[in-house]
Amino acid sequence: MHALLSEILEKSTNEERKNLYSLLEGVKKKQSNHYKTYLAGYLGISSKLINDNTYESIIPNRELIHNPLQIAHGGVTASLIDIAMGSLVHQSLPSTKAAVTSEMNIHYLAKGSGQELRCRSQVLFKSETRWVVKANVFRDDQTIIATATGNFMIIPRKV
Amino acid sequence: MHALLSEILEKSTNEERKNLYSLLEGVKKKQSNHYKTYLAGYLGISSKLINDNTYESIIPNRELIHNPLQIAHGGVTASLIDIAMGSLVHQSLPSTKAAVTSEMNIHYLAKGSGQELRCRSQVLFKSETRWVVKANVFRDDQTIIATATGNFMIIPRKV
Amino acid sequence: MHALLSEILEKSTNEERKNLYSLLEGVKKKQSNHYKTYLAGYLGISSKLINDNTYESIIPNRELIHNPLQIAHGGVTASLIDIAMGSLVHQSLPSTKAAVTSEMNIHYLAKGSGQELRCRSQVLFKSETRWVVKANVFRDDQTIIATATGNFMIIPRKV
Amino acid sequence: MHALLSEILEKSTNEERKNLYSLLEGVKKKQSNHYKTYLAGYLGISSKLINDNTYESIIPNRELIHNPLQIAHGGVTASLIDIAMGSLVHQSLPSTKAAVTSEMNIHYLAKGSGQELRCRSQVLFKSETRWVVKANVFRDDQTIIATATGNFMIIPRKV
Repeated sequence: MHALLSEILEKSTNEERKNLYSLLEGVKKKQSNHYKTYLAGYLGISSKLINDNTYESIIPNRELIHNPLQIAHGGVTASLIDIAMGSLVHQSLPSTKAAVTSEMNIHYLAKGSGQELRCRSQVLFKSETRWVVKANVFRDDQTIIATATGNFMIIPRKV
Repeated sequence: MHALLSEILEKSTNEERKNLYSLLEGVKKKQSNHYKTYLAGYLGISSKLINDNTYESIIPNRELIHNPLQIAHGGVTASLIDIAMGSLVHQSLPSTKAAVTSEMNIHYLAKGSGQELRCRSQVLFKSETRWVVKANVFRDDQTIIATATGNFMIIPRKV
Repeated sequence: MHALLSEILEKSTNEERKNLYSLLEGVKKKQSNHYKTYLAGYLGISSKLINDNTYESIIPNRELIHNPLQIAHGGVTASLIDIAMGSLVHQSLPSTKAAVTSEMNIHYLAKGSGQELRCRSQVLFKSETRWVVKANVFRDDQTIIATATGNFMIIPRKV
Repeated sequence: MHALLSEILEKSTNEERKNLYSLLEGVKKKQSNHYKTYLAGYLGISSKLINDNTYESIIPNRELIHNPLQIAHGGVTASLIDIAMGSLVHQSLPSTKAAVTSEMNIHYLAKGSGQELRCRSQVLFKSETRWVVKANVFRDDQTIIATATGNFMIIPRKV
């Protein structure tokens, strides 16, 4: 493993070393259970509940998540949205229930540039078997870069 | 960097070492321009044109892309779909044009389990300014796990 | 009622009389239970099962359904799609079950012109509680004018 | 035409006569240019601008728009949404521009019951070539029965 790392470092630019370091930090946080998934580590996500019905997830906008045009990759924005909506639902459900995304609709509105991408999700509708959630993604200058809705099926949690 | 790697390796399980190795291989392929983005390296994606109008992208279904339920993360499936649809559009456009995703709609249908996830995308509609693409994601046993449509705006490519 | 009809007829063009006649025929077919809804009568819809998994609904493209640009109204196309998808689900379900549309996504692709609009719907996915259906709308010249997906929740039928 | 009307009236219930009367009134308002489309007359829609960025369209919830379960038809709700979103865009555009719906996504949340259905639309995003609009539909008791987003392409208006 160290050999592979050396091989990578040998040919790397400063920027690439920085990216790799961020990635390894994410892996470490996954191993220590700070993150529950490698995806969260890759994104470097941090989240918190803003109020009863609003959840915020933030990712640094670094080269690790860019598309070839040097802006946030649409797949990354979709991942941020899915996590922000799903986490809001999960943390609101009783411990006997879980949720799975059944549908997601995203409108991409502006370039994901700046220092970080901030996603705010809110519950629009709740029933026994289904929750509908909306989410907006903003950049530092408060421009909305994506707006989304998601449909979640509520299922019994396997213990 | 080696110190951070050692720290990670020290406490790691075999499975975690395997994940880390795959991740580093992805980084290496990004540096050597085999991949154009870190996201592609993280996903371990491989793609090819099946015929004039059909494009296939495959990712290995490994722990790196799992959600806490040990199945493919919805955000990862969304990323796979976005890449498969966007790549099809880009490789069909003349070199003076580029495409940006303006809208994506995904229905999640079944668990992303098995050895790999395979996404097939097809163009449904083309105009001067807009392409509409569909994509289906399958697992090894040919079960469809997601179906999607995407809307792409065609813009002049900046040179 | 006849007075209101006279009043309308007095100032009407030939085209308007034709429209009104079609509308009254739709009302008559609703009363005789040929149609189950006034909407179906307004649209002048006719439907049939093409094969086990494909359902076709056709509406005449007449002024009654036009927007101010003299082409099929987007709301009418949406209605045609909802009916074609929902009818396919209902006629495939056992008599103890019913379905309600929980989500619909429509891409409008080309002008709804020509003699009639033909919608073909197909089931993409079935589970105990949820069906996902796709639909495409074509005009006479076989141009696809809209493509859609719908999500249906399966519920017990109240007797 | 009067013969057809008589035929319909002969076998009609009071409720059916009421429906027919409403429908004829809609036709009359279409002829007098109070409504620009027969669809608007069928729906009995009335609209107004609430503020710079919010538009409201209301339809009476009468049998004319019901599905076989005696609640508002999903296609009718879709039509209401399409009209409320499209009208907001059109009345905000300069007279040299027009808009066409390119995509619409609707989540159906609750039964369309009560006296009337009220749709409020708001612009989320504007560019030279594309507007994104959201809409929510409410019933009398303020329950949200549908939430939607729409994508509009801005084109030159043909004079």
